[in-house]
Amino acid sequence: MWILRLNMTDRTYCLEDVPEAYKELGGRGLTSTMVYDKVPPTCHPLGPNNKLIFAPGIITGTAAPSSARLSVGAKSPLTGTIKEANVGSAWAPALARMRIKALVVEGQPQEKGQFWMASLSWDKDKPAVEFFPADEYVGQDLYEVYPKLLARFGKVNIAGIGTAGEFLYGDSGIAFDDLKQRPTRYAGRGGVGAVMGSKGLKFIVVDSKGAPGVEISDKSLFDVGRKKMADALRAHALTKPKGALNTYGTAVLINVMNEAGGLPTRNFSSGRFEGAAKIAGEAIFEGNKERLGKEVYNHACSPGCIIQCSNTWYAADGTEIASCVEYESDWSLGANCGIDDLDDIAEMVKLCNAYGLDTIEAGTTIAVAMEAGVAEFGDSKKAIELLHEMGKGTPMGRILGSGTHIAAQVLGVVRNPTVKGQSMPAYDPRAVKGIGVTYATTTMGADHTAGYTIAPEIVGVGGSVDALSPEGKADLSRAFQATTAFIDSTGHCLFIAFAILDIPSGNEGMVEEVNGLLGTSYTTDDVVPVGSEILRKERAFNEAAGFTAAHDRLPEFMRYEPLPPHNSVFDVPDEELDAVYGKL
Amino acid sequence: MWILRLNMTDRTYCLEDVPEAYKELGGRGLTSTMVYDKVPPTCHPLGPNNKLIFAPGIITGTAAPSSARLSVGAKSPLTGTIKEANVGSAWAPALARMRIKALVVEGQPQEKGQFWMASLSWDKDKPAVEFFPADEYVGQDLYEVYPKLLARFGKVNIAGIGTAGEFLYGDSGIAFDDLKQRPTRYAGRGGVGAVMGSKGLKFIVVDSKGAPGVEISDKSLFDVGRKKMADALRAHALTKPKGALNTYGTAVLINVMNEAGGLPTRNFSSGRFEGAAKIAGEAIFEGNKERLGKEVYNHACSPGCIIQCSNTWYAADGTEIASCVEYESDWSLGANCGIDDLDDIAEMVKLCNAYGLDTIEAGTTIAVAMEAGVAEFGDSKKAIELLHEMGKGTPMGRILGSGTHIAAQVLGVVRNPTVKGQSMPAYDPRAVKGIGVTYATTTMGADHTAGYTIAPEIVGVGGSVDALSPEGKADLSRAFQATTAFIDSTGHCLFIAFAILDIPSGNEGMVEEVNGLLGTSYTTDDVVPVGSEILRKERAFNEAAGFTAAHDRLPEFMRYEPLPPHNSVFDVPDEELDAVYGKL
Repeated sequence: MWILRLNMTDRTYCLEDVPEAYKELGGRGLTSTMVYDKVPPTCHPLGPNNKLIFAPGIITGTAAPSSARLSVGAKSPLTGTIKEANVGSAWAPALARMRIKALVVEGQPQEKGQFWMASLSWDKDKPAVEFFPADEYVGQDLYEVYPKLLARFGKVNIAGIGTAGEFLYGDSGIAFDDLKQRPTRYAGRGGVGAVMGSKGLKFIVVDSKGAPGVEISDKSLFDVGRKKMADALRAHALTKPKGALNTYGTAVLINVMNEAGGLPTRNFSSGRFEGAAKIAGEAIFEGNKERLGKEVYNHACSPGCIIQCSNTWYAADGTEIASCVEYESDWSLGANCGIDDLDDIAEMVKLCNAYGLDTIEAGTTIAVAMEAGVAEFGDSKKAIELLHEMGKGTPMGRILGSGTHIAAQVLGVVRNPTVKGQSMPAYDPRAVKGIGVTYATTTMGADHTAGYTIAPEIVGVGGSVDALSPEGKADLSRAFQATTAFIDSTGHCLFIAFAILDIPSGNEGMVEEVNGLLGTSYTTDDVVPVGSEILRKERAFNEAAGFTAAHDRLPEFMRYEPLPPHNSVFDVPDEELDAVYGKL
Repeated sequence: MWILRLNMTDRTYCLEDVPEAYKELGGRGLTSTMVYDKVPPTCHPLGPNNKLIFAPGIITGTAAPSSARLSVGAKSPLTGTIKEANVGSAWAPALARMRIKALVVEGQPQEKGQFWMASLSWDKDKPAVEFFPADEYVGQDLYEVYPKLLARFGKVNIAGIGTAGEFLYGDSGIAFDDLKQRPTRYAGRGGVGAVMGSKGLKFIVVDSKGAPGVEISDKSLFDVGRKKMADALRAHALTKPKGALNTYGTAVLINVMNEAGGLPTRNFSSGRFEGAAKIAGEAIFEGNKERLGKEVYNHACSPGCIIQCSNTWYAADGTEIASCVEYESDWSLGANCGIDDLDDIAEMVKLCNAYGLDTIEAGTTIAVAMEAGVAEFGDSKKAIELLHEMGKGTPMGRILGSGTHIAAQVLGVVRNPTVKGQSMPAYDPRAVKGIGVTYATTTMGADHTAGYTIAPEIVGVGGSVDALSPEGKADLSRAFQATTAFIDSTGHCLFIAFAILDIPSGNEGMVEEVNGLLGTSYTTDDVVPVGSEILRKERAFNEAAGFTAAHDRLPEFMRYEPLPPHNSVFDVPDEELDAVYGKL
């Protein structure tokens, strides 16, 4: 396997053997280790010394179910911390099949405002790269650009940035093509699109034709593991075919979180949204059924996924508005902006995809702008206009494109729902204390996926604990954060966590897959220690970058402003927050 | 003496005795101690838990020369650090004569967007305060508002915010009236205007009529001291009547710094400006002579100043354009924007005063906008337009009003000349290494006044060292920072430093003034230890707020981009930077 380096200073590339120390790493474990090892912690995230690293998971590219995930690592321009943004698409297995363990984009062109693209293909016995100017695609809607690239390069998979990345926005993701090759799968958070933009790199297209595929050390052990994993996924109520996620998508959580009083509404001023039922996963399923005259179950974001949680929302005339209306997008652009119109929410999701914006950060930023009086809460037409401003780079668009934290400062909003510069996802920490501990302490800035304590706090997966209680939440969050770092390294979608938390054989299966692939001998007891080691590196990078316990805090207003309907504040003591990494 | 508290939550006030621990403090020593003692380090700077503290210096309000300085302290919304902004005006002595040791503004109104003002007067035996609505003055040019306040309240002195403070800009100062009662004297840096704005406080007018004046413990010792100080100021070439500062103003430094190759030009891309001679202090003096037909020497910013360094720039028809065109303003709005037209620069100074903007931050921000392509370098008409946008609060104006650091992020500019969120003043640290050490390490964010090593590095005051050498600059900066903290506590203008560095009796005089006033028995050997103790508190606040050695760094580009004409980079080792406070 190789490390493939693209040097954007002079548009050259080189292939390197994988150093011994990286051989058993993959996904987040690899990107975080490489950032920790090679990126100066105090460098400017958009300067020449940052690196953008793409790493498929350990088992990505194999027949293991729901394993087509990619980790994108860098120093984040949004947070200033280390960053791993995770995405499922066919691009990651394509890279893995070419035996590229990590693709590292480094350097920076002298030329300002010019863009290039890199085309990867298999050249007899190794990957090869060609660079082309990409200026002709600059400033355009990605829904228009991706078909042009497919027409030009044939059957490739695409990673690319929209105008958000060109403008170096803090709110800019990297768009990967979905199974219909739409630009809809995002390494969304932390401004990784801007890092790519700062390197003058607009697209990386990958054609893995002829590539040898992933090497598996012990095929029979691997197959035992992947079968256990597949069985667990097919058995669990959340992940099984026609189960909750396959039927209602992640937006199944809208009603659940609203019930729990933790669905952040109108810039985190209430935990209940009166329009929740209108935008819930159930409403999407029923609405599609009515508009199309048939039941539509969800589809996979990437090859080989059993869970298949990606929905599509259709217009009244049966044409597609957008795929996928995830819970987070539905919430951020919906409830959090006081908007209950699914057609408009889906239109906004589409605009985020078209312009290269992270939907979470986009919605939380528009909500802050609404609090500042730029628009009224609930005014979806104005919200759509604001997204166009972001995509076009008007002054207001640039404010909002900079993300929630900066927009709040520019617009004078004190109720700024961010941690380490990244906006909070769809769970108000005053109503769900464990996820608040994760937001506060994760190395990533506010991020639900970094330690999804919602499982036991709300969904009753992996046990059941009182969401409103601050008790024990440091230990809970720590365990989830460490386990997550392991899962994010395997290449599995995080949603396997539901099955492996509740079904022990699924958990064994995950470890056997990894052992089968690498030839290692991990046990299930190693999951937390291995994950913890990744967290320690991430944390060490952040410390060297200037982060301290003072940054492991929620925004001050959440300590003094009670959240309806429970009228609770965030009351996990600082010492508990400090114990998350203090006891790691 | 009293601590006067204004509670802006309910517009009430109270007078408190001065606690024992604060009795020997004044100015910066007092504001920093009170912020350290009472402001939660992780609070939101614009939230209800920040405090805005006004403290005259120890000897302010007396007949000591050049001693009418005020310290304004808070947690800064620009930097997130502790902040002391220092200003000379008649307002400070008025407060001191009313025996108000510190005025503390605390709390925050529930009402959004409403403004009040506080009127202080002497009521028989103590200060009294009345609150009035101030909404009628919102959104207006301060040059229009201050006369209205004088017409309404009579012979008062005024502290107030312009639209910049109303909009909660990071670039917002507090304007004090000068001796002609124009709104031109600024506690400029760090966004203290926004802190005042966040508390719904638009003005504090002070009428000290009937007040008893400052108590002096040992009048004869005090008089000995102030005479020594006055003699030193009158003897030194920089500070004497018709000396450099009185003749050419602080802008005398334009030619000097240009010669030294350290005058930051076009957003810190060169240390030489081809238009320097056209905007230099000499050009101001000669230009005024030509336009008025007579030589005009400078005037005092505040009562009792011997140095009298404030200039005025007159139009061709003999009317005033603006006072004062300081070196820093002349540079930031001039050379740093590639602008060499004094009429336009003075117009911009006036607009900053009118809108309540800090001139340094405004100029460095416009330069960053020019680098981003918002305007061409040198386009003074467009720069004037941008200042109007800032004052009016358009989206572009809000971006720029947020200060250089945020504007650079919003506009995608990597060459971001800030430390801890505050923009660098008029000395490029690649050409003058000691001031770079001060920028990097001071508790205030980039700030020349925090440790003005320019004295020995450029001006030959207090010795002479090689500006381009990194050697010994940590020790030099530390000594200057500690001495400065002492001077900033006395109430003296920092410009006395020239005289006390070169004339030992001046230094003795300063200490005797303080001893005479307080009844203390400091020696000149105590200046550095007393100053160091203030710095330690400031540093401790910052550490608790989340600042580490990683923040004591200059922007990365200054380490890899050589500055013409010396083509030097900033090469003071990190360990040296860390030694500034490490060895404090």
